[in-house]
Amino acid sequence: MSAEDATYYPGVPLRGYMDAAASSAPAPGGGSVSATVGALGAALVSMVCNLTLGKEKFAHLEGQVKELVEQAEQLRRELILLLQNDTTAYNGVIAAYRLPKETDEEKAARHVAVQKGLMHAADVPLDICRAAVRVCRLAKTAAEVGNPAAVTDAGCAVLFGEAAAQGAALNVEINLGSIEEEAYRRAAADEVAGILAEAAALRTEVLKTTREKL
Amino acid sequence: MSAEDATYYPGVPLRGYMDAAASSAPAPGGGSVSATVGALGAALVSMVCNLTLGKEKFAHLEGQVKELVEQAEQLRRELILLLQNDTTAYNGVIAAYRLPKETDEEKAARHVAVQKGLMHAADVPLDICRAAVRVCRLAKTAAEVGNPAAVTDAGCAVLFGEAAAQGAALNVEINLGSIEEEAYRRAAADEVAGILAEAAALRTEVLKTTREKL
Repeated sequence: MSAEDATYYPGVPLRGYMDAAASSAPAPGGGSVSATVGALGAALVSMVCNLTLGKEKFAHLEGQVKELVEQAEQLRRELILLLQNDTTAYNGVIAAYRLPKETDEEKAARHVAVQKGLMHAADVPLDICRAAVRVCRLAKTAAEVGNPAAVTDAGCAVLFGEAAAQGAALNVEINLGSIEEEAYRRAAADEVAGILAEAAALRTEVLKTTREKL
Repeated sequence: MSAEDATYYPGVPLRGYMDAAASSAPAPGGGSVSATVGALGAALVSMVCNLTLGKEKFAHLEGQVKELVEQAEQLRRELILLLQNDTTAYNGVIAAYRLPKETDEEKAARHVAVQKGLMHAADVPLDICRAAVRVCRLAKTAAEVGNPAAVTDAGCAVLFGEAAAQGAALNVEINLGSIEEEAYRRAAADEVAGILAEAAALRTEVLKTTREKL
Protein backbone atom coordinates (compact mmCIF):
# COMPACT_ATOMS: atom_id res chain seq x y z
CA MET A 1 0.00 0.00 0.00
CA SER A 2 1.35 3.45 -0.85
CA ALA A 3 0.79 6.86 0.77
CA GLU A 4 -1.53 7.71 -2.15
CA ASP A 5 -3.88 4.81 -1.47
CA ALA A 6 -7.24 6.16 -0.30
CA THR A 7 -7.03 4.13 2.90
CA TYR A 8 -3.33 4.56 3.70
CA TYR A 9 -3.00 7.03 6.59
CA PRO A 10 -6.08 5.85 8.58
CA GLY A 11 -4.32 2.45 8.80
CA VAL A 12 -0.93 3.81 9.89
CA PRO A 13 -0.09 3.54 13.61
CA LEU A 14 -0.91 6.76 15.51
CA ARG A 15 2.79 7.40 16.20
CA GLY A 16 3.69 6.76 12.55
CA TYR A 17 1.10 9.28 11.35
CA MET A 18 2.65 11.83 13.71
CA ASP A 19 6.13 10.95 12.40
CA ALA A 20 4.92 11.57 8.85
CA ALA A 21 3.40 14.93 9.92
CA ALA A 22 6.67 15.92 11.65
CA SER A 23 8.80 15.13 8.58
CA SER A 24 9.75 17.55 5.81
CA ALA A 25 7.50 15.66 3.35
CA PRO A 26 4.76 18.09 2.23
CA ALA A 27 1.98 15.69 3.30
CA PRO A 28 0.43 15.04 5.74
CA GLY A 29 0.58 18.67 6.88
CA GLY A 30 -1.72 21.07 8.71
CA GLY A 31 -4.70 20.32 6.43
CA SER A 32 -4.67 16.55 6.95
CA VAL A 33 -3.98 16.98 10.68
CA SER A 34 -6.96 19.36 10.91
CA ALA A 35 -9.17 16.59 9.48
CA THR A 36 -7.67 14.14 12.00
CA VAL A 37 -8.37 16.50 14.92
CA GLY A 38 -11.94 16.98 13.64
CA ALA A 39 -12.41 13.20 13.36
CA LEU A 40 -11.17 12.82 16.96
CA GLY A 41 -13.83 15.37 17.97
CA ALA A 42 -16.51 13.37 16.13
CA ALA A 43 -15.29 10.20 17.91
CA LEU A 44 -15.78 11.91 21.28
CA VAL A 45 -19.38 12.86 20.34
CA SER A 46 -19.94 9.14 19.64
CA MET A 47 -18.38 8.29 23.01
CA VAL A 48 -20.86 10.55 24.83
CA CYS A 49 -23.73 8.85 22.92
CA ASN A 50 -22.41 5.34 23.64
CA LEU A 51 -22.21 6.23 27.36
CA THR A 52 -25.86 7.40 27.23
CA LEU A 53 -27.57 4.68 25.16
CA GLY A 54 -29.04 1.67 26.98
CA LYS A 55 -29.19 3.42 30.36
CA GLU A 56 -32.66 3.45 31.96
CA LYS A 57 -32.14 7.01 33.23
CA PHE A 58 -31.82 8.31 29.66
CA ALA A 59 -34.37 5.97 27.99
CA HIS A 60 -36.59 8.94 27.01
CA LEU A 61 -33.68 10.35 24.92
CA GLU A 62 -32.86 7.05 23.16
CA GLY A 63 -34.19 8.12 19.72
CA GLN A 64 -32.42 11.48 19.74
CA VAL A 65 -29.11 10.00 20.93
CA LYS A 66 -29.24 7.18 18.36
CA GLU A 67 -29.66 9.76 15.60
CA LEU A 68 -26.77 11.79 17.05
CA VAL A 69 -24.36 8.84 17.10
CA GLU A 70 -25.27 7.98 13.49
CA GLN A 71 -24.51 11.55 12.41
CA ALA A 72 -21.23 11.58 14.37
CA GLU A 73 -20.08 8.28 12.85
CA GLN A 74 -20.98 9.46 9.33
CA LEU A 75 -19.05 12.68 9.95
CA ARG A 76 -16.06 10.75 11.29
CA ARG A 77 -16.02 8.61 8.11
CA GLU A 78 -16.06 11.78 5.98
CA LEU A 79 -13.20 13.33 7.96
CA ILE A 80 -11.13 10.12 7.79
CA LEU A 81 -11.51 10.23 3.99
CA LEU A 82 -10.52 13.91 3.99
CA LEU A 83 -7.43 13.35 6.18
CA GLN A 84 -6.23 10.99 3.46
CA ASN A 85 -7.43 13.10 0.49
CA ASP A 86 -5.64 16.21 1.76
CA THR A 87 -2.32 14.35 1.44
CA THR A 88 -2.89 13.88 -2.32
CA ALA A 89 -4.82 17.10 -3.10
CA TYR A 90 -1.71 18.74 -4.53
CA ASN A 91 -0.86 15.90 -6.93
CA GLY A 92 -3.03 17.47 -9.63
CA VAL A 93 -1.24 20.81 -9.24
CA ILE A 94 2.18 19.14 -9.45
CA ALA A 95 1.11 17.17 -12.55
CA ALA A 96 -0.19 20.38 -14.16
CA TYR A 97 3.12 22.20 -13.52
CA ARG A 98 4.88 19.35 -15.34
CA LEU A 99 2.83 19.87 -18.55
CA PRO A 100 4.83 21.03 -21.61
CA LYS A 101 5.30 24.80 -21.98
CA GLU A 102 7.09 25.19 -25.32
CA THR A 103 4.41 26.77 -27.53
CA ASP A 104 1.98 29.56 -26.59
CA GLU A 105 -0.85 27.02 -26.91
CA GLU A 106 0.88 24.66 -24.45
CA LYS A 107 1.55 27.53 -22.05
CA ALA A 108 -2.14 28.55 -22.09
CA ALA A 109 -3.35 24.96 -21.58
CA ARG A 110 -0.85 24.48 -18.72
CA HIS A 111 -2.02 27.70 -17.07
CA VAL A 112 -5.66 26.56 -17.16
CA ALA A 113 -4.69 23.11 -15.80
CA VAL A 114 -2.69 24.65 -12.93
CA GLN A 115 -5.59 26.92 -11.97
CA LYS A 116 -8.04 23.99 -12.07
CA GLY A 117 -5.64 21.94 -9.92
CA LEU A 118 -5.31 24.79 -7.40
CA MET A 119 -9.09 25.11 -7.05
CA HIS A 120 -9.40 21.34 -6.55
CA ALA A 121 -6.62 21.49 -3.93
CA ALA A 122 -8.37 24.35 -2.11
CA ASP A 123 -11.67 22.43 -2.12
CA VAL A 124 -10.27 19.72 0.20
CA PRO A 125 -9.49 22.00 3.20
CA LEU A 126 -12.80 23.79 2.50
CA ASP A 127 -14.57 20.43 2.86
CA ILE A 128 -12.61 19.82 6.09
CA CYS A 129 -13.73 23.24 7.36
CA ARG A 130 -17.39 22.44 6.54
CA ALA A 131 -17.20 19.06 8.27
CA ALA A 132 -15.42 20.52 11.33
CA VAL A 133 -18.20 23.00 12.12
CA ARG A 134 -20.68 20.11 11.93
CA VAL A 135 -18.60 18.43 14.69
CA CYS A 136 -19.17 21.57 16.80
CA ARG A 137 -22.94 21.40 16.17
CA LEU A 138 -23.10 17.74 17.20
CA ALA A 139 -20.98 18.49 20.30
CA LYS A 140 -23.60 21.06 21.36
CA THR A 141 -26.36 18.42 21.21
CA ALA A 142 -24.10 15.90 23.02
CA ALA A 143 -23.47 18.40 25.84
CA GLU A 144 -27.19 19.14 26.14
CA VAL A 145 -28.76 15.66 25.95
CA GLY A 146 -25.86 13.26 26.63
CA ASN A 147 -24.99 11.54 29.92
CA PRO A 148 -23.74 14.40 32.16
CA ALA A 149 -21.00 12.05 33.46
CA ALA A 150 -19.43 12.32 29.98
CA VAL A 151 -19.94 16.06 29.51
CA THR A 152 -16.17 16.77 29.49
CA ASP A 153 -15.96 14.62 26.34
CA ALA A 154 -18.60 16.82 24.67
CA GLY A 155 -16.54 19.85 25.74
CA CYS A 156 -13.39 18.30 24.22
CA ALA A 157 -15.34 17.53 21.03
CA VAL A 158 -16.28 21.19 20.47
CA LEU A 159 -12.69 22.27 21.18
CA PHE A 160 -11.29 19.86 18.59
CA GLY A 161 -14.04 20.69 16.06
CA GLU A 162 -13.36 24.42 16.37
CA ALA A 163 -9.55 24.01 16.17
CA ALA A 164 -9.99 21.78 13.09
CA ALA A 165 -12.20 24.42 11.40
CA GLN A 166 -9.62 27.14 12.13
CA GLY A 167 -6.71 24.97 10.95
CA ALA A 168 -8.50 23.99 7.73
CA ALA A 169 -9.39 27.68 7.18
CA LEU A 170 -5.70 28.65 7.24
CA ASN A 171 -5.09 26.04 4.54
CA VAL A 172 -7.96 27.37 2.41
CA GLU A 173 -6.67 30.95 2.82
CA ILE A 174 -3.09 30.14 1.75
CA ASN A 175 -4.40 28.38 -1.38
CA LEU A 176 -6.65 31.31 -2.33
CA GLY A 177 -3.54 33.47 -2.78
CA SER A 178 -2.62 31.53 -5.94
CA ILE A 179 -6.13 31.34 -7.44
CA GLU A 180 -6.96 33.95 -10.09
CA GLU A 181 -10.72 33.43 -10.34
CA GLU A 182 -12.16 36.28 -8.27
CA ALA A 183 -15.63 34.66 -7.92
CA TYR A 184 -14.11 31.45 -6.48
CA ARG A 185 -11.88 33.41 -4.09
CA ARG A 186 -14.70 35.60 -2.79
CA ALA A 187 -17.18 32.71 -2.33
CA ALA A 188 -14.60 30.60 -0.47
CA ALA A 189 -13.45 33.47 1.77
CA ASP A 190 -17.05 34.39 2.66
CA GLU A 191 -17.99 30.79 3.43
CA VAL A 192 -14.91 30.27 5.62
CA ALA A 193 -15.58 33.49 7.57
CA GLY A 194 -19.14 32.32 8.28
CA ILE A 195 -17.96 28.88 9.41
CA LEU A 196 -15.32 30.32 11.76
CA ALA A 197 -17.81 32.70 13.36
CA GLU A 198 -20.30 29.85 13.94
CA ALA A 199 -17.59 27.50 15.28
CA ALA A 200 -16.28 30.16 17.71
CA ALA A 201 -19.80 30.85 19.03
CA LEU A 202 -20.44 27.10 19.47
CA ARG A 203 -17.14 26.67 21.32
CA THR A 204 -18.06 29.42 23.82
CA GLU A 205 -21.60 28.06 24.29
CA VAL A 206 -20.66 24.36 24.66
CA LEU A 207 -17.78 25.11 27.07
CA LYS A 208 -20.26 27.10 29.20
CA THR A 209 -22.76 24.18 29.22
CA THR A 210 -19.91 21.76 30.01
CA ARG A 211 -18.60 23.76 33.00
CA GLU A 212 -22.16 24.16 34.37
CA LYS A 213 -22.54 20.36 34.39
CA LEU A 214 -19.09 19.46 35.78
CA MET B 1 0.04 -6.47 24.04
CA SER B 2 -2.82 -5.12 26.17
CA ALA B 3 -4.39 -1.66 26.39
CA GLU B 4 -2.52 -1.15 29.68
CA ASP B 5 0.88 -1.63 28.08
CA ALA B 6 2.79 1.68 28.16
CA THR B 7 3.24 1.59 24.38
CA TYR B 8 -0.18 0.27 23.35
CA TYR B 9 -2.20 3.17 21.89
CA PRO B 10 0.69 4.91 20.05
CA GLY B 11 1.04 1.65 18.05
CA VAL B 12 -2.66 1.28 17.23
CA PRO B 13 -3.76 2.37 13.71
CA LEU B 14 -5.09 5.94 13.64
CA ARG B 15 -8.60 4.71 12.79
CA GLY B 16 -8.46 2.09 15.57
CA TYR B 17 -7.49 4.73 18.16
CA MET B 18 -10.51 6.78 17.02
CA ASP B 19 -12.74 3.67 17.26
CA ALA B 20 -11.55 3.14 20.86
CA ALA B 21 -12.26 6.80 21.67
CA ALA B 22 -15.76 6.54 20.12
CA SER B 23 -16.65 3.42 22.14
CA SER B 24 -18.34 3.35 25.55
CA ALA B 25 -15.10 2.11 27.17
CA PRO B 26 -13.97 4.78 29.67
CA ALA B 27 -10.52 5.08 28.03
CA PRO B 28 -9.26 6.58 25.80
CA GLY B 29 -11.51 9.59 26.45
CA GLY B 30 -11.15 13.36 26.27
CA GLY B 31 -7.96 13.39 28.37
CA SER B 32 -6.03 10.96 26.19
CA VAL B 33 -7.37 12.59 23.01
CA SER B 34 -6.22 15.99 24.34
CA ALA B 35 -2.68 14.57 24.65
CA THR B 36 -2.96 13.19 21.09
CA VAL B 37 -4.08 16.57 19.71
CA GLY B 38 -1.20 18.25 21.58
CA ALA B 39 1.26 15.71 20.15
CA LEU B 40 -0.08 16.42 16.64
CA GLY B 41 0.60 20.12 17.31
CA ALA B 42 4.17 19.31 18.39
CA ALA B 43 4.61 17.23 15.21
CA LEU B 44 3.61 20.25 13.10
CA VAL B 45 6.21 22.43 14.89
CA SER B 46 8.79 19.80 13.88
CA MET B 47 7.47 19.89 10.30
CA VAL B 48 8.04 23.66 10.11
CA CYS B 49 11.61 23.13 11.42
CA ASN B 50 12.30 20.28 8.98
CA LEU B 51 11.13 22.50 6.09
CA THR B 52 13.53 25.23 7.28
CA LEU B 53 16.73 23.30 8.10
CA GLY B 54 19.32 22.80 5.33
CA LYS B 55 17.98 25.67 3.19
CA GLU B 56 20.62 28.30 2.32
CA LYS B 57 18.10 31.12 2.76
CA PHE B 58 17.62 30.22 6.43
CA ALA B 59 21.23 29.18 7.19
CA HIS B 60 21.60 32.01 9.74
CA LEU B 61 18.76 30.50 11.80
CA GLU B 62 20.11 26.92 11.70
CA GLY B 63 21.14 26.83 15.41
CA GLN B 64 17.85 28.24 16.68
CA VAL B 65 15.73 25.95 14.47
CA LYS B 66 17.75 22.84 15.45
CA GLU B 67 17.09 23.63 19.11
CA LEU B 68 13.40 24.17 18.35
CA VAL B 69 12.97 20.81 16.61
CA GLU B 70 14.73 19.03 19.51
CA GLN B 71 12.31 20.66 21.98
CA ALA B 72 9.30 19.80 19.80
CA GLU B 73 10.34 16.15 19.45
CA GLN B 74 10.97 15.87 23.21
CA LEU B 75 7.55 17.37 23.88
CA ARG B 76 5.91 15.02 21.36
CA ARG B 77 7.51 12.01 23.17
CA GLU B 78 6.14 13.31 26.50
CA LEU B 79 2.63 13.76 25.05
CA ILE B 80 2.68 10.30 23.43
CA LEU B 81 3.50 8.85 26.87
CA LEU B 82 0.68 10.90 28.42
CA LEU B 83 -1.91 9.84 25.79
CA GLN B 84 -1.24 6.28 26.92
CA ASN B 85 -0.93 7.07 30.66
CA ASP B 86 -4.28 8.87 30.74
CA THR B 87 -5.97 5.61 29.68
CA THR B 88 -4.69 3.86 32.84
CA ALA B 89 -4.71 6.81 35.27
CA TYR B 90 -7.96 5.62 36.86
CA ASN B 91 -6.75 2.07 37.53
CA GLY B 92 -5.40 3.13 40.94
CA VAL B 93 -8.75 4.68 41.90
CA ILE B 94 -10.65 1.55 40.82
CA ALA B 95 -8.22 -0.66 42.81
CA ALA B 96 -8.65 1.57 45.87
CA TYR B 97 -12.46 1.35 45.68
CA ARG B 98 -12.09 -2.45 45.74
CA LEU B 99 -10.19 -2.42 49.07
CA PRO B 100 -12.01 -4.08 52.03
CA LYS B 101 -14.38 -1.86 54.03
CA GLU B 102 -15.56 -4.08 56.88
CA THR B 103 -13.89 -2.48 59.91
CA ASP B 104 -13.49 1.21 60.73
CA GLU B 105 -9.75 0.83 60.22
CA GLU B 106 -10.26 -0.66 56.75
CA LYS B 107 -12.73 2.07 55.87
CA ALA B 108 -10.24 4.80 56.86
CA ALA B 109 -7.39 3.15 54.91
CA ARG B 110 -9.62 2.75 51.88
CA HIS B 111 -10.65 6.40 52.04
CA VAL B 112 -7.00 7.54 52.10
CA ALA B 113 -6.14 5.21 49.19
CA VAL B 114 -9.07 6.49 47.10
CA GLN B 115 -8.05 10.13 47.69
CA LYS B 116 -4.42 9.34 46.78
CA GLY B 117 -5.62 7.58 43.62
CA LEU B 118 -7.82 10.54 42.66
CA MET B 119 -4.91 12.97 43.05
CA HIS B 120 -2.69 10.72 40.92
CA ALA B 121 -5.46 10.51 38.28
CA ALA B 122 -5.84 14.31 38.25
CA ASP B 123 -2.06 14.73 37.86
CA VAL B 124 -2.11 13.13 34.37
CA PRO B 125 -4.42 15.69 32.68
CA LEU B 126 -2.54 18.42 34.60
CA ASP B 127 0.68 17.18 32.99
CA ILE B 128 -1.08 17.17 29.58
CA CYS B 129 -2.19 20.76 30.20
CA ARG B 130 1.39 21.80 31.09
CA ALA B 131 2.81 20.10 27.99
CA ALA B 132 0.11 21.57 25.72
CA VAL B 133 0.95 25.19 26.59
CA ARG B 134 4.60 24.41 25.77
CA VAL B 135 3.38 23.35 22.27
CA CYS B 136 1.84 26.85 21.95
CA ARG B 137 5.15 28.48 22.98
CA LEU B 138 7.13 26.45 20.42
CA ALA B 139 4.50 27.25 17.73
CA LYS B 140 5.13 30.97 18.37
CA THR B 141 8.86 30.53 17.68
CA ALA B 142 8.10 28.37 14.62
CA ALA B 143 5.80 31.07 13.20
CA GLU B 144 8.45 33.74 13.82
CA VAL B 145 11.66 32.05 12.62
CA GLY B 146 10.48 29.10 10.49
CA ASN B 147 10.20 28.92 6.69
CA PRO B 148 7.28 31.29 5.86
CA ALA B 149 6.09 28.75 3.24
CA ALA B 150 5.16 26.49 6.19
CA VAL B 151 3.62 29.19 8.40
CA THR B 152 0.10 27.66 8.20
CA ASP B 153 1.56 24.58 9.93
CA ALA B 154 2.81 26.80 12.79
CA GLY B 155 -0.69 28.30 12.94
CA CYS B 156 -2.25 24.82 13.11
CA ALA B 157 0.25 23.87 15.84
CA VAL B 158 -0.88 26.70 18.14
CA LEU B 159 -4.54 25.84 17.49
CA PHE B 160 -4.02 22.21 18.45
CA GLY B 161 -1.81 23.12 21.46
CA GLU B 162 -4.45 25.52 22.79
CA ALA B 163 -7.34 23.09 22.22
CA ALA B 164 -5.33 20.34 23.96
CA ALA B 165 -4.68 22.62 26.97
CA GLN B 166 -8.39 23.48 27.21
CA GLY B 167 -9.46 19.82 26.82
CA ALA B 168 -6.99 18.64 29.47
CA ALA B 169 -8.15 21.47 31.78
CA LEU B 170 -11.76 20.18 31.63
CA ASN B 171 -10.45 16.78 32.71
CA VAL B 172 -8.48 18.29 35.61
CA GLU B 173 -11.53 20.30 36.71
CA ILE B 174 -13.91 17.32 36.75
CA ASN B 175 -11.42 15.35 38.87
CA LEU B 176 -10.99 18.18 41.38
CA GLY B 177 -14.66 17.82 42.34
CA SER B 178 -13.91 14.50 44.10
CA ILE B 179 -10.68 15.59 45.82
CA GLU B 180 -11.00 16.67 49.45
CA GLU B 181 -7.57 18.24 49.96
CA GLU B 182 -8.21 21.97 49.68
CA ALA B 183 -4.52 22.86 49.10
CA TYR B 184 -4.27 20.44 46.15
CA ARG B 185 -7.53 21.71 44.66
CA ARG B 186 -6.57 25.37 44.90
CA ALA B 187 -3.02 24.87 43.54
CA ALA B 188 -4.29 22.86 40.56
CA ALA B 189 -7.14 25.28 39.75
CA ASP B 190 -4.77 28.28 39.91
CA GLU B 191 -2.17 26.60 37.72
CA VAL B 192 -4.76 25.57 35.11
CA ALA B 193 -6.22 29.09 34.99
CA GLY B 194 -2.74 30.53 34.34
CA ILE B 195 -2.03 27.97 31.61
CA LEU B 196 -5.35 28.63 29.82
CA ALA B 197 -4.78 32.40 29.87
CA GLU B 198 -1.28 31.99 28.42
CA ALA B 199 -2.45 29.48 25.76
CA ALA B 200 -5.33 31.76 24.67
CA ALA B 201 -2.97 34.76 24.34
CA LEU B 202 -0.49 32.66 22.33
CA ARG B 203 -3.27 31.42 20.03
CA THR B 204 -4.33 35.01 19.24
CA GLU B 205 -0.74 36.17 18.72
CA VAL B 206 0.43 33.23 16.56
CA LEU B 207 -2.70 33.30 14.36
CA LYS B 208 -2.03 37.03 13.77
CA THR B 209 1.61 36.32 12.78
CA THR B 210 0.44 33.43 10.56
CA ARG B 211 -2.15 35.50 8.66
CA GLU B 212 0.38 38.34 8.18
CA LYS B 213 2.75 35.88 6.47
CA LEU B 214 0.15 34.02 4.35
